[in-house]
Amino acid sequence: MKVAVLGVGLIGGSIGLAARARAGAEVCGYDREPGVRERALQLGVIDTASADIAGAVAGADVVFAATPVGALPDTVRHALAGAGRDCVVSDVGSTKRMLARVGVDERFVGGHPLAGAESAGVEHAREDLFEGAVWYLTPAEHSTAGVLYERLHRLLASFGARPTAIDAATHDRLMACVSHLPHVLANALVGQAAALLGGEGGDGGEGGEGPASLPAVGPSFRDATRVAGANSAIWTDIYLSNSDAIVACIDELLAHLAQVRTWIGEQDAHAVARWNDRARGARETLLGAALTGGPVQELRVSVPNRPGVIADIALALGREGVNIADMALSPSQDNSQGVVALWIGGGEQRTRRAHELIRELGFPVARA
Amino acid sequence: MKVAVLGVGLIGGSIGLAARARAGAEVCGYDREPGVRERALQLGVIDTASADIAGAVAGADVVFAATPVGALPDTVRHALAGAGRDCVVSDVGSTKRMLARVGVDERFVGGHPLAGAESAGVEHAREDLFEGAVWYLTPAEHSTAGVLYERLHRLLASFGARPTAIDAATHDRLMACVSHLPHVLANALVGQAAALLGGEGGDGGEGGEGPASLPAVGPSFRDATRVAGANSAIWTDIYLSNSDAIVACIDELLAHLAQVRTWIGEQDAHAVARWNDRARGARETLLGAALTGGPVQELRVSVPNRPGVIADIALALGREGVNIADMALSPSQDNSQGVVALWIGGGEQRTRRAHELIRELGFPVARA
Repeated sequence: MKVAVLGVGLIGGSIGLAARARAGAEVCGYDREPGVRERALQLGVIDTASADIAGAVAGADVVFAATPVGALPDTVRHALAGAGRDCVVSDVGSTKRMLARVGVDERFVGGHPLAGAESAGVEHAREDLFEGAVWYLTPAEHSTAGVLYERLHRLLASFGARPTAIDAATHDRLMACVSHLPHVLANALVGQAAALLGGEGGDGGEGGEGPASLPAVGPSFRDATRVAGANSAIWTDIYLSNSDAIVACIDELLAHLAQVRTWIGEQDAHAVARWNDRARGARETLLGAALTGGPVQELRVSVPNRPGVIADIALALGREGVNIADMALSPSQDNSQGVVALWIGGGEQRTRRAHELIRELGFPVARA
Repeated sequence: MKVAVLGVGLIGGSIGLAARARAGAEVCGYDREPGVRERALQLGVIDTASADIAGAVAGADVVFAATPVGALPDTVRHALAGAGRDCVVSDVGSTKRMLARVGVDERFVGGHPLAGAESAGVEHAREDLFEGAVWYLTPAEHSTAGVLYERLHRLLASFGARPTAIDAATHDRLMACVSHLPHVLANALVGQAAALLGGEGGDGGEGGEGPASLPAVGPSFRDATRVAGANSAIWTDIYLSNSDAIVACIDELLAHLAQVRTWIGEQDAHAVARWNDRARGARETLLGAALTGGPVQELRVSVPNRPGVIADIALALGREGVNIADMALSPSQDNSQGVVALWIGGGEQRTRRAHELIRELGFPVARA
């Protein structure tokens, strides 16, 4: 099998490694940057390099377009123009309807692996990057190219990924809700905090003194704003390529907030408590299942914030095979102490054991 | 000095321990629950217990009201009624104007220590809970009770806390922005995701099948929704006690989102990129300073998601004195691998060393 990878960054490079090692494929790589092509060859990510798309896709059985989102439509167009009649062309972009419009071609099947940081380069490529990761595929409706879809599916499965068919519109709505909107809100929250503290960073401002530092923030603010100001080049493309789904998501949020605003403004304790209870239930179901295939339970540990504490806890749990599904560390302002929130999967017994182990280490621990 | 603590949970209990150990005070504790009073005596958190507020505050020099937010106005009222003319009465509630209205009394100075999980009990009380923590104080304007304020300030400083005067309105706006609003948004996000996936948990729903599990979520969603559905009893009180500041904060957010919605809807790449760049700058300034007293740098490490990995990394960094200012773990869906984001403080050199140490462990690592 011959595989072509167009754009050899972290994702493209990892596809190259996986295709070579796990599917015995011959991989030809294209990248706009000669230095990246060179590096990919040195790292054994690709067998051969091509300076243009046509050269890379010639004779290929499977083509992956893995350039940045903004460049994907052109990449896919050129790939379809150059690829043979029996070649399946896919991509790895994080929004899918845009490509569905470009790739109105029996040979095109959109894709989106949920793995890898968006901005890392080929030197971080790994053969096992897709192990266990969902890889969305968006075949066109009524597509008759079953053979091509199956070839792509089998190749991705050989990477260890879990190919999952989804229609492009649902995919984009889902990403708008669970990824793009949280990014928008992170930006909004830091902007508001900065404006409140008398500096810039708010809605309209530019230049000026810059915001004062926050006197002290809770873990909720830090968690909610981790992704604020993610790589502008990448995220501007993402926001614009999924603009209508994001706008719809913002509108839904505006309606939700208007409702909550009324309940809070009217001091409606019953409605506020019910709304909060529903959120608790929704979070546990949504995240519990996504994290560990079952509900997770939260422990909060108070710790002195010195090097080695996390290690002590993680080692103690690790020795008994208790896996930490998720973790969040909230240092105090002077770093002298902190609270570690741990989410433990595997049921009540595991959580109870984790609780005991941490207590034996001498750290105060509570169920959240 | 005699100190009275009204409500002996995590915060009240830690005040008791700190006052006894660090200020040589005699501590009398009141709690509605006889069992809690008993436990507090056994743990040495208080010297004596009282079954009513009047008994606890009799002869006290300093009184701390540390009951849940909803009960604070009554607690403070009773404390002021029973306390002597030369006694300073404070509280530890997370919203402050409500108390300012109740405590229109020369002897009242509102307070809010930024330490401790809200729901933990007296068994988690620690003498050093306030070490390094900001402790907001909201003295009434034109208050002439300088002696009382100074006594409280000195006592808190002896706990290791950093007493910081702030007017009640600014405090409440700040908390609405950095704590209450992120909680509202976390609730909204899980509600939207649950509704999108065809289940309940959305705005109006109740009962029914419950939401389907998320097929896969990014770390941004998990981070932004960690606090969704936080303890309803506590948070309903908080939302309602700070309702107008939260409503103002929501209105500001609505305006911000309406603006961003327009930019995204109109495909205004320039405006979106500028907005995102401003957010990046605001986040770095706000959080860098809050976390470590200086900018932090983010590393992303790809790791197999097995017990012990976090320990290996934390140990390697700990051995060389590199402290992890913040950490977020994002497992893949089947838990076979994950990405750990680490925020390293202390400047470029520390970050570079952390990068090397992690690479030496064999994990792919990148600057974010």
